[in-house]
Amino acid sequence: MDGSRFPTQTRIFEVGPRDGLQNEPHFIATEHKVNLTNLLVEAGCRLIEATSFVHPKWVPQMADAEEVLARIERRPGVLFNALVPNVKGLERAVAAGLTHVVTIMSASESHNVKNLNMSVSASLEAIAAINAAAAGRGVRVRSYIATAYGCPFEGEIPAERVADIAVALEGFGSYEISLGDTTGMAHPGSAFAVGRLVKTRLRRASLAAHFHRADGIEFANVLASLEAGIEVFDGAAGGLGGCPYAPGASGNIATETLVEMLHRMGIETGIDREKMAAAAAYAKSLSATQTAREGSHSGPR
Amino acid sequence: MDGSRFPTQTRIFEVGPRDGLQNEPHFIATEHKVNLTNLLVEAGCRLIEATSFVHPKWVPQMADAEEVLARIERRPGVLFNALVPNVKGLERAVAAGLTHVVTIMSASESHNVKNLNMSVSASLEAIAAINAAAAGRGVRVRSYIATAYGCPFEGEIPAERVADIAVALEGFGSYEISLGDTTGMAHPGSAFAVGRLVKTRLRRASLAAHFHRADGIEFANVLASLEAGIEVFDGAAGGLGGCPYAPGASGNIATETLVEMLHRMGIETGIDREKMAAAAAYAKSLSATQTAREGSHSGPR
Repeated sequence: MDGSRFPTQTRIFEVGPRDGLQNEPHFIATEHKVNLTNLLVEAGCRLIEATSFVHPKWVPQMADAEEVLARIERRPGVLFNALVPNVKGLERAVAAGLTHVVTIMSASESHNVKNLNMSVSASLEAIAAINAAAAGRGVRVRSYIATAYGCPFEGEIPAERVADIAVALEGFGSYEISLGDTTGMAHPGSAFAVGRLVKTRLRRASLAAHFHRADGIEFANVLASLEAGIEVFDGAAGGLGGCPYAPGASGNIATETLVEMLHRMGIETGIDREKMAAAAAYAKSLSATQTAREGSHSGPR
Repeated sequence: MDGSRFPTQTRIFEVGPRDGLQNEPHFIATEHKVNLTNLLVEAGCRLIEATSFVHPKWVPQMADAEEVLARIERRPGVLFNALVPNVKGLERAVAAGLTHVVTIMSASESHNVKNLNMSVSASLEAIAAINAAAAGRGVRVRSYIATAYGCPFEGEIPAERVADIAVALEGFGSYEISLGDTTGMAHPGSAFAVGRLVKTRLRRASLAAHFHRADGIEFANVLASLEAGIEVFDGAAGGLGGCPYAPGASGNIATETLVEMLHRMGIETGIDREKMAAAAAYAKSLSATQTAREGSHSGPR
C-alpha cells in the first residue's frame, strides 16, 4: 500500500432512499422518505439514488416515486437519480424532472433470471434501449452490474465476464458503472482483481464499487478498491438494505462509517460526519429490517 | 495491492479468554473460561492468551488464573500465554507451568499513567526486569505496545516513538511485538505507516497487530497491515472486550470474521471456521458487555 496512490478526495453515491429502503416489509410514509433525503442533502451528499420507477407490483415500497421527487428539497449541485427497469420507467423519471437514471443487471445468468426474470443478453438489450431513449432526452445513465464479485448460485464470476458487460454498458452510453457485491461475498483479493480489470477496460465511464455488509470485511474491500483505482463508492445511510427474509442479502455498506474511514485516511468526501450520523440514525429509525437484524443478531457485531 | 505480496498463511493470536473477558462486570465462572478455551483449541487456535497474573485487586475477573491453567486441556502444539505485570506475576505464571508470557505498556505517556500508573520509562524498566527474569527461567516474552495507532488523550502517536519502544522491547529479549489499537483509532494509512516502520526496525522479533472494533474499519486495517508485512493478527472470539462503562474502549476485532476474511483471500490460518463460529457464540453468551452493546447499539451494525 502506497498512500500516495490514493486520491485526496472521492465521491460517495448514497443509495439509502432507494436500495436501502426498497425491501422494507412495511410501507414507509412518503414524508419519512423525503425527510431522509433532505437530511442526506443537509449532510453534504451530492449524489443520491432517491427512488425507483420499477412497477409498484414488484417494488410496492417505491410506489410513491413521483411524490418523493416532487417533495424533496432541490439544491444546486445535488444530483438525484432513480432506478429504471425499462423505457417506460425512464419516461416516468423524465416526467418527474430527473436528468439521471440508474439501470441494473447481473453478471450472473442465474441471478439475473431470479432477480429480473430475464437472461443476461435480454437485460443488455433492455439497457441498450434505455440508453438510446435517454440519449434522445438528454438523460444520463448509471449502470449497476450485480453479483460482480460472486453469485450465491454460481459462486465466483469470472472477472473477464464482468469486464465484458461493463464495456458493453459503456458502449451503450452509460457514464458510470457500479460493481455490485450483491450478497457480501467479496474479499480484498476479488475486490482488487475485478476492480482493476474493469478499470483498465473502461475508456470513458467512471467506475464505482457497491459493497454490502459482511461483518466489516466490506471496509477492507473499499481499501482494495481504492488501490484498484475505483473512483466512487456507493453506500446507504445506516447500512440499510437487504431483507430479513433473504439470509443471503445483507444490507449496504454504511455510508457514515465509509466516510469515517475515508476521512481518517485524509480522503475528502464533502460529507459532514456529524450530520451524516444524524441521517443514519433517522434511516435506521425507519427500518424494520435493521431493528430485526440488531435484535436477533448472530454475527460478531 | 499486489496479492502476490501476501503470505499464503498467517498466525492468529487469540486473546478472548484474557483481553476479551477481563473487563466483564460480573465474575465468569472458571468452568466457563475453561470451556471457552477448550472450544478455541478445538477450533484450531494454537496461540491463546489464556489469563492474566495481574493482581486480583486490579483485575478481579482473572483471580482464577492458576485454576484456569490447571483445568484447560493441554494439547501438543498449543501455546498458552498469560499477561504478567511484573516479576511476581512471571513467577506465578512459571509456577502454573507456562513457558510464554505477555507484557503490556503504552506508547502514550498519558495512557500509560492512566492504565498502569507509571511512566513509559518506568514501564520499560519493569519489562526489562520481566525479560531478564524470564530468560533465567527459559520463558519467552511477548510484548504489547498499546495506543500504537493513537491515544484518546494525546491523539496520534509518532510512528518513530512506537518504533523506538519496539526496538527497546526487542532488545530486552521479547520474541514478538504486538501493536495495539487500544481504542479503535487506527485507519489503513496509520496501520500501514506504523506497521511498516516498526517492521523495518525490528531484527529478530516477529510483529503482530492488535486491532479493536471500529464499526468494521478494523478489517481495512488488517489489509493494510498485511501489506506492511505484519505476520500475526490478534483477535478475540466474538469480538469480545472493551467495557460498557468506557465509551472509548471498543471490543477486539472478532477472530471469526478475521479468519473468514483471510480464508476468502486464500490465506490459511489453521482455524476451522465453523468451529470458530461455535467458540465465538459461546464467548458472546458469557459476555454482558456484548449483550449490552448489541442491545443498545447505536452504530451501523
